[in-house]
Amino acid sequence: MDTSRAPMGWNSWDCYGAAVTEDIVRQNAAYMAKKLRSFGYSYVVVDIQWAAPLARNNEYLPFTELEMDQYSRLLPAVNRFPSAAGGQGFGPLAEEIHRMGLKFGIHIMRGIPRQAVHRNTGIWGTRRTARDIAAVDSICSWNTDMYGVDPRKEGAKAYYQSLFALYASWGVDFIKCDDICRELPKAEAELLLIADALRGCGREMVLSLAGGPALPEKAELYKRLADMWRIADDFWHDLRLLYDMFDRAAAWCIHGGNGHWPDADMLPVGPIRQTYDPHDRTRFTRDEQITMMTLWCILRSPLIIGGEMTGFDPFTLSLLTNRSILNMHRLARHSHPVWRKTTDETEWILWTAACADGGTYGALFNVGEADAKIVLPLQELELRGPLACTDLWSGVSGVVRDALPLSVKRHGAAAFLLKQ
Amino acid sequence: MDTSRAPMGWNSWDCYGAAVTEDIVRQNAAYMAKKLRSFGYSYVVVDIQWAAPLARNNEYLPFTELEMDQYSRLLPAVNRFPSAAGGQGFGPLAEEIHRMGLKFGIHIMRGIPRQAVHRNTGIWGTRRTARDIAAVDSICSWNTDMYGVDPRKEGAKAYYQSLFALYASWGVDFIKCDDICRELPKAEAELLLIADALRGCGREMVLSLAGGPALPEKAELYKRLADMWRIADDFWHDLRLLYDMFDRAAAWCIHGGNGHWPDADMLPVGPIRQTYDPHDRTRFTRDEQITMMTLWCILRSPLIIGGEMTGFDPFTLSLLTNRSILNMHRLARHSHPVWRKTTDETEWILWTAACADGGTYGALFNVGEADAKIVLPLQELELRGPLACTDLWSGVSGVVRDALPLSVKRHGAAAFLLKQ
Amino acid sequence: MDTSRAPMGWNSWDCYGAAVTEDIVRQNAAYMAKKLRSFGYSYVVVDIQWAAPLARNNEYLPFTELEMDQYSRLLPAVNRFPSAAGGQGFGPLAEEIHRMGLKFGIHIMRGIPRQAVHRNTGIWGTRRTARDIAAVDSICSWNTDMYGVDPRKEGAKAYYQSLFALYASWGVDFIKCDDICRELPKAEAELLLIADALRGCGREMVLSLAGGPALPEKAELYKRLADMWRIADDFWHDLRLLYDMFDRAAAWCIHGGNGHWPDADMLPVGPIRQTYDPHDRTRFTRDEQITMMTLWCILRSPLIIGGEMTGFDPFTLSLLTNRSILNMHRLARHSHPVWRKTTDETEWILWTAACADGGTYGALFNVGEADAKIVLPLQELELRGPLACTDLWSGVSGVVRDALPLSVKRHGAAAFLLKQ
Amino acid sequence: MDTSRAPMGWNSWDCYGAAVTEDIVRQNAAYMAKKLRSFGYSYVVVDIQWAAPLARNNEYLPFTELEMDQYSRLLPAVNRFPSAAGGQGFGPLAEEIHRMGLKFGIHIMRGIPRQAVHRNTGIWGTRRTARDIAAVDSICSWNTDMYGVDPRKEGAKAYYQSLFALYASWGVDFIKCDDICRELPKAEAELLLIADALRGCGREMVLSLAGGPALPEKAELYKRLADMWRIADDFWHDLRLLYDMFDRAAAWCIHGGNGHWPDADMLPVGPIRQTYDPHDRTRFTRDEQITMMTLWCILRSPLIIGGEMTGFDPFTLSLLTNRSILNMHRLARHSHPVWRKTTDETEWILWTAACADGGTYGALFNVGEADAKIVLPLQELELRGPLACTDLWSGVSGVVRDALPLSVKRHGAAAFLLKQ
Repeated sequence: MDTSRAPMGWNSWDCYGAAVTEDIVRQNAAYMAKKLRSFGYSYVVVDIQWAAPLARNNEYLPFTELEMDQYSRLLPAVNRFPSAAGGQGFGPLAEEIHRMGLKFGIHIMRGIPRQAVHRNTGIWGTRRTARDIAAVDSICSWNTDMYGVDPRKEGAKAYYQSLFALYASWGVDFIKCDDICRELPKAEAELLLIADALRGCGREMVLSLAGGPALPEKAELYKRLADMWRIADDFWHDLRLLYDMFDRAAAWCIHGGNGHWPDADMLPVGPIRQTYDPHDRTRFTRDEQITMMTLWCILRSPLIIGGEMTGFDPFTLSLLTNRSILNMHRLARHSHPVWRKTTDETEWILWTAACADGGTYGALFNVGEADAKIVLPLQELELRGPLACTDLWSGVSGVVRDALPLSVKRHGAAAFLLKQ
Repeated sequence: MDTSRAPMGWNSWDCYGAAVTEDIVRQNAAYMAKKLRSFGYSYVVVDIQWAAPLARNNEYLPFTELEMDQYSRLLPAVNRFPSAAGGQGFGPLAEEIHRMGLKFGIHIMRGIPRQAVHRNTGIWGTRRTARDIAAVDSICSWNTDMYGVDPRKEGAKAYYQSLFALYASWGVDFIKCDDICRELPKAEAELLLIADALRGCGREMVLSLAGGPALPEKAELYKRLADMWRIADDFWHDLRLLYDMFDRAAAWCIHGGNGHWPDADMLPVGPIRQTYDPHDRTRFTRDEQITMMTLWCILRSPLIIGGEMTGFDPFTLSLLTNRSILNMHRLARHSHPVWRKTTDETEWILWTAACADGGTYGALFNVGEADAKIVLPLQELELRGPLACTDLWSGVSGVVRDALPLSVKRHGAAAFLLKQ
Repeated sequence: MDTSRAPMGWNSWDCYGAAVTEDIVRQNAAYMAKKLRSFGYSYVVVDIQWAAPLARNNEYLPFTELEMDQYSRLLPAVNRFPSAAGGQGFGPLAEEIHRMGLKFGIHIMRGIPRQAVHRNTGIWGTRRTARDIAAVDSICSWNTDMYGVDPRKEGAKAYYQSLFALYASWGVDFIKCDDICRELPKAEAELLLIADALRGCGREMVLSLAGGPALPEKAELYKRLADMWRIADDFWHDLRLLYDMFDRAAAWCIHGGNGHWPDADMLPVGPIRQTYDPHDRTRFTRDEQITMMTLWCILRSPLIIGGEMTGFDPFTLSLLTNRSILNMHRLARHSHPVWRKTTDETEWILWTAACADGGTYGALFNVGEADAKIVLPLQELELRGPLACTDLWSGVSGVVRDALPLSVKRHGAAAFLLKQ
Repeated sequence: MDTSRAPMGWNSWDCYGAAVTEDIVRQNAAYMAKKLRSFGYSYVVVDIQWAAPLARNNEYLPFTELEMDQYSRLLPAVNRFPSAAGGQGFGPLAEEIHRMGLKFGIHIMRGIPRQAVHRNTGIWGTRRTARDIAAVDSICSWNTDMYGVDPRKEGAKAYYQSLFALYASWGVDFIKCDDICRELPKAEAELLLIADALRGCGREMVLSLAGGPALPEKAELYKRLADMWRIADDFWHDLRLLYDMFDRAAAWCIHGGNGHWPDADMLPVGPIRQTYDPHDRTRFTRDEQITMMTLWCILRSPLIIGGEMTGFDPFTLSLLTNRSILNMHRLARHSHPVWRKTTDETEWILWTAACADGGTYGALFNVGEADAKIVLPLQELELRGPLACTDLWSGVSGVVRDALPLSVKRHGAAAFLLKQ
């Protein structure tokens, strides 16, 4: 696995909620292969409740019937994923996506299906049953599919091993494990069981932990066990959530790098929430999207697209494929905020990072309510001019002697590389 | 309903846990009718998991199969309650107990059976199903039988009405509703639904709320809705729990009276935990039992016997049938603690109450580690001698001028009535 | 000391703040002797900063010069208390008040004067100085006169003994010790030192602890050391403070009696805050004053008048001298609230107490916003009719069979005695 | 002021507490000028209670008499600082130190002397007095010299301006302002007043805020107002304090740079606590001192020596004058921890920083209880070999291909620079 850069790809949640189908996955994968793969995007991830035949949108169906094998393992709902027929699971779909040069991922919930526990189905390779390993007081607060698994029970380890053996047989490359990231320390032993089973399954898979926010005091544990972990609750096109992410990014920035990625969540761009209204688009303005993309990239967060890609307009595609910005995502090192201050009634946030190819990145965010200008002394980035400066979003270059004059739209951002 | 005195009776939990049977209930009812009824004891209560055919002792069987009708209502397990055969439920047993001049009660858990939700069975008199009304994130932390009911859902009210209609048809006189007393404010709307359904079912029933401890800030709500409510978690023969009850009693004493009873829980006396070992007896010493009975009576707590009554020794029977002590339970008014102090290395607690027939009750507890004497000035009870004084436990009488000399065993208690 | 009834009297704070003078004390004492003494009022108390020559009103003068002897003990400011001239302190004024058949009290602050510490004056009978015994990090948050005293220091005990020796020599009967009641557990050792010194000084004095609110978990300590202790912060003519007192009274009612009195603070009636405007009168309506007096009396709180008595109108005098209400203050036992409920949009609070002469007191408060009627079943007081009933405020009597019809003004109260 | 590097110097507290004298300052300044100045050390700072004639050691004398001018400003005690005679204050001493090519600093406490308030002395240039501006409820919890100043009071601003005018006239270059750093938000307005007065006094001075720990949520405020601020309470030769500093350094590292320095406090090296015992030396082992110096330098903390420098042994001098380590202090950028993990029973902490001259710094700490070896893959620092590697403490160089083998003593540290 490439540990120098956070995973990039697409996830079905923002546009289809629990109701994504095989066709939708296929059309997005095709788009990615054609338009985004060369920029580094590769993961195609099927989000929650793929086992539920009746799922309709972003609301979870409570207590809904799920497709499941005799070993208490969920299977794709065949009415939504026809290629899963005949017990093939996600194998055929994964293979198809691999053939496009992409990687395939799925969402899972911590635990064992409640219906398995109530029907008392078996655990592969053991004489234990679902009822034997379920944790009686462990449920998810927002979804009724699962009971937690009690790691002290015989059969618990075998159950998780049997899960990842199945996923490996399907060719899964990425596991988004939900209801676990912010459930520590209660679910810590269960997380260890899951991570061990995944790492020991014989196939390399990204382990992505949800739902956020992760616990800062468990940073070293996340780094040790997972490839990425959510630092906030679900992110949507809401300015408060976007601005809140600056604080979370500041708290987590020192923990990113070398295959360990604080995850700011999917990018709600382009057409989203398609099951409610196919005309729905992100409510973020272009400048807000630039702020988002700039922050995600200098933080080195995973870049997982949330919108229906086949409906992208030119702006959205350009947002996600700016070579200079994506280079910052790839080459930034030691990312961190510099300051947050108010000048002339505008509130600004400044971030910086070293560039692995030499030079220093800067990102300046206008979190005020009006377009504004500022002159940024190089000294504030601990640099001395003259330096060559490239504006990453526009590509414009120049030389800076002592201070960099910047003009930034309200809610917008500037990103630049300073180099000798 | 008699609102002048807290309910008295027997409950199966302390001696048989979740595994009580019809025969056991019958033999205890017979004992009560013969030996205790004339002292005021009348309720015979079947505790938790009577719907579980496999229940064995005080441990709950997780996810165990329960007997249930097509309307999602639990029914007595016929293997344990043969008279319930043919869909008669607890009707025949209640009738039998009524014939003994006693009253019949059952334990229920807040909510709807999980197995009803997973099988999606119906709700009597509606087109709704168990799945429609279950609260998705509401489970009991220590028992897996039920989901909470979401009071906002159509069908929720009908479900609880159908439950109490069934219990009324059986002839139930007492409902111990569990997993609700300390679950406020979360479960407050559900409690309102339950209380309304009970009060509207056409049969008078005591509503007893468990598990404790109740929330002091909700005192007025308990008083308005319930007849009794648990002020502590499960009480057992443990000195720490007994001494802790003094603080809880002090906090709740002003709320007792007129049909509203802070409940200190069952009295673990005589043979208990019989499913583990038929030789098990309470570990409380006789003096500790006297302390317990004295506190429960001056507090006016419900007096619900926890032991297997047919195995009572003479002391236990005398403990529960002391006419003077039971009179204090009946006649005490305005009960409250006076002080807690240490004299000569002994720690003492003094309680008092007015006697509805005239005079003043006092109860003095030696919570120290040695037998001790004390001279109690009448002034500390705001009384002036000379007064006639009766020792309630011994029946000895005398006249007190200024101060009452008392000799109390370690962990024991004295109770007395002072009267002109 | 009479332990059957809470202290009654007058205190200078509500009408003159820190600026009371000898003449004012004298005129109020004369009024009390003439009009109130026969009703039980006897204490005349000089409140805070009597040592400050420049005190002007209810604001404390920060860092103001105080009169003090060479032993670090504060003395009355002679410009305000001319009879203190010649080192006689409060002796002459106390004697004058005693001659009127009344008792004399003063306010003190926990600690030693800061000016004593900064000038490093001596401690009577020791070689220690003020600097030796001051607690370096202990100051009052709202008054700059004192440092706390460190009880572990040699000289600390001698200092407090020298204080109470002086007060005894003056003939003081009542000490209101401030900045200590709510300062536990930090100031607990200092309180023990103060109480010991007071009890050992050779003269009987009431020990009254301020400022409130007292800590409920320290109830037994207050009862052991003090005669009265404030259960709330300063009470003024503010409806929120009045209604808040119901909760505090409920929490403390079980601790009153036999010389131990939870103190609801002075009664702000008649002319108050005279140093700001001689026309100032209490803003409480008559009904609100009736609510206050009823609650204070059934709670058995000390009754300390706060207004300038010589300016009382007939209503105010009648409020404080209703024989039946004052009998309730004298004879109530086992006081406690019964319930708080809303009927027909009016919120009601019901209190009860036993009467030491037989019968039961009731007090019903209309805490709603409109005059209202209610029919109160005797059963709610655990009584059975027929009973003779006397309305305490009006004196009207009658017979009650099952229920008592009551008509209560908004913010007002009814009080009654039920007797066979 | 040079904003590229945190201040370096010496402070009298660790070796002489409150009792430092002019001679001691002079001898340490002379040592610094001769042996340390060329390495960057320049500030000579006189710590707390220089106005107290009687100060003896590290304990503060409570309520001790302080030297003060008529404008409520403290002056050096002439018995300890004879050159201050004739009202010259620290002017002559500062001048002497400046002549050595060094800079002079003093400690001050937030507020105004209590003795000024009690004597009610004046405020320079105003008609206000100390009593007018003192904050009545604001004292330091560990020192009795001062009252806080109430920023809302007229005269408060003039007072602080008069202080810094005096210090400027003396030639002070560095103010360590105490009792303020962790006193936010309560003392925030007072801090603003102090910072404004200092910045406006006409002389450039370092503003160093004590006592720690600073509040993380006020990071932007500290950066805006101060040059350095303490991130922990007083640091001493205690392993728990040393290891605790790793967490604090991790929390604050992103805020250091460009003249804003999270301050880990003085370095307790060589002879310390000389007023208690002239034989006292730091109890840190050599390896622990290497850990300390390495962490302080990679964090870019101020380097303020705490020991009596004239008594340094060769090791201590070498510790403080290693050119490569001091270069890391000067050139590190974007410092942050990488991970904390346990391998083979040894717990390790890894930090990194970019080097402003190119390359990457690493610092590896063995916080286990045994000497240990580890092989550190370059990938964990996000680097690829081959790279030239220099061990900073030993100066040994070599080439690293994929991983760096390191051998680190228990409690010790390795520091290295990796460069192409």
